[in-house]
Amino acid sequence: MSRLNQSPRVAFQGERGAFSEEAAVKLLGEDVRLVPCPTFEKLFAAIGDGLADCALAPIENSLAGSVQRTYDLLEEGCLHITAEVIMRITHNLIGCAGSSLENVTTVESHPVALAQCERFFTEHPHIKRLPTDDTAASVRRVVAAGDCSRAAIAGSRAASIYHGAILRQHLEDHNENYTRFVLLKSAPVVSVQADKLSLVLRLADRPGALHDALEPFARCGIDLLKIETRPIIGEPWQYRFYLDLQASLSDSEVVSVLAELRSRADEVRLLGRYAAAPSEFNGAENH
Amino acid sequence: MSRLNQSPRVAFQGERGAFSEEAAVKLLGEDVRLVPCPTFEKLFAAIGDGLADCALAPIENSLAGSVQRTYDLLEEGCLHITAEVIMRITHNLIGCAGSSLENVTTVESHPVALAQCERFFTEHPHIKRLPTDDTAASVRRVVAAGDCSRAAIAGSRAASIYHGAILRQHLEDHNENYTRFVLLKSAPVVSVQADKLSLVLRLADRPGALHDALEPFARCGIDLLKIETRPIIGEPWQYRFYLDLQASLSDSEVVSVLAELRSRADEVRLLGRYAAAPSEFNGAENH
Repeated sequence: MSRLNQSPRVAFQGERGAFSEEAAVKLLGEDVRLVPCPTFEKLFAAIGDGLADCALAPIENSLAGSVQRTYDLLEEGCLHITAEVIMRITHNLIGCAGSSLENVTTVESHPVALAQCERFFTEHPHIKRLPTDDTAASVRRVVAAGDCSRAAIAGSRAASIYHGAILRQHLEDHNENYTRFVLLKSAPVVSVQADKLSLVLRLADRPGALHDALEPFARCGIDLLKIETRPIIGEPWQYRFYLDLQASLSDSEVVSVLAELRSRADEVRLLGRYAAAPSEFNGAENH
Repeated sequence: MSRLNQSPRVAFQGERGAFSEEAAVKLLGEDVRLVPCPTFEKLFAAIGDGLADCALAPIENSLAGSVQRTYDLLEEGCLHITAEVIMRITHNLIGCAGSSLENVTTVESHPVALAQCERFFTEHPHIKRLPTDDTAASVRRVVAAGDCSRAAIAGSRAASIYHGAILRQHLEDHNENYTRFVLLKSAPVVSVQADKLSLVLRLADRPGALHDALEPFARCGIDLLKIETRPIIGEPWQYRFYLDLQASLSDSEVVSVLAELRSRADEVRLLGRYAAAPSEFNGAENH
């Protein structure tokens, strides 16, 4: 088997050059084989369809919040979280070669990226915004058109893949713009560094149900990092609860805390035990 | 003052005929003066700008979940929740007068509405979907074009306002499709029927913080109906917590439970005390 064949195939949502691709390379290295998927549904189906060995899904952004579609697809499928990675999101203005900011009259990108660059558009009121469905694909189209009046907002990887010129860096309004991604596999893989647990719960509809479910964690000093709720389809105003917990627990401690949780909740499913990604956000003032 | 001038002006997001307009009329009656707003930002600014006396904002859908933008704007502004209303969402295929389903080759609507009618598109594979930014505006454009090959998916109110023909009812995949709206005013108004509290909290970043904050409610038998989290801008992986609680409390009981909560949380803000909307979902099997 050649070395190329041994490198894992990772599915991500978006076109080549997307922020998800940058995150996949950051987590798995440049040798990883990239499997772009046009939709979240195809991303979550890629492993089962034999197209990929793992899938990287965005789960939350530090400004925009939780990616609701990812939470729903995690619950519907049976994939396991085996790792996470945090990517700093910086937005670049990318045009065709030879262009400069002075030429640009239209800027196209995903609506979330456009909304995160409000200050740039206020400073350049003559520039029109054009919402599209993909940051990287906007770069591809702008470069292919060869029209210096058009530019796109995207990550630097999209500029290098499509041979675009970076006309300006750091268009983003907020420094502290990070997206957290989870790496999914068909079977659980628990590393010795695992210090994070992700769970999904269903609780009885009675006063105190969530307070009771959290009691074992509070008692054992296990930190609740995040709680997220999503509606249960067909049962209006009933919710599933997703918990991320920080805990360097032994296998037997995990078994025991899950058993206690199961006695207090209607349903408990362990989504994964994995190592928390190092937070980058002390370096954010550097630009 | 004429009777017309006395009826309140209610701001809602979307064009005339939107589901939000149907909800405003359901809550406030047909005499209400309707103030359509193109964006959520304009909706939340309408009272302060003197354009409206109250504003109706969608806060969650029983299939799609929380409306994240509404939660963020509730926190940023200083409006008070004074009432809520629950609307059943049913999707209609609406074309121009004289058209029929057999003529239709393109259906336009908001992406969420298109996604909630998956079964219809599977049964009619020759019909193309065209995503737009508004359900009611799609009806307006289809009717104005007078082209029988085009139709839109929207509520029945849009059909009657723009003189469209309903070509088919109940395109939605799921019966249990409801949107909950909150009525916002510049000052709190607490009715005698008030049995619901909405709060936003900020908690210390330590194990057990949420468990501690929920303890007074669990002890008093106050039911936690919903918990929602949103990121704190500039502080990655820190969250605000939004709680909806069911409690027919006296003024002094509210004061006492808020005081206890304030001793356990870094920040507590009461968003509103109001009467819970009657749930409609027992009637959902009727179609």
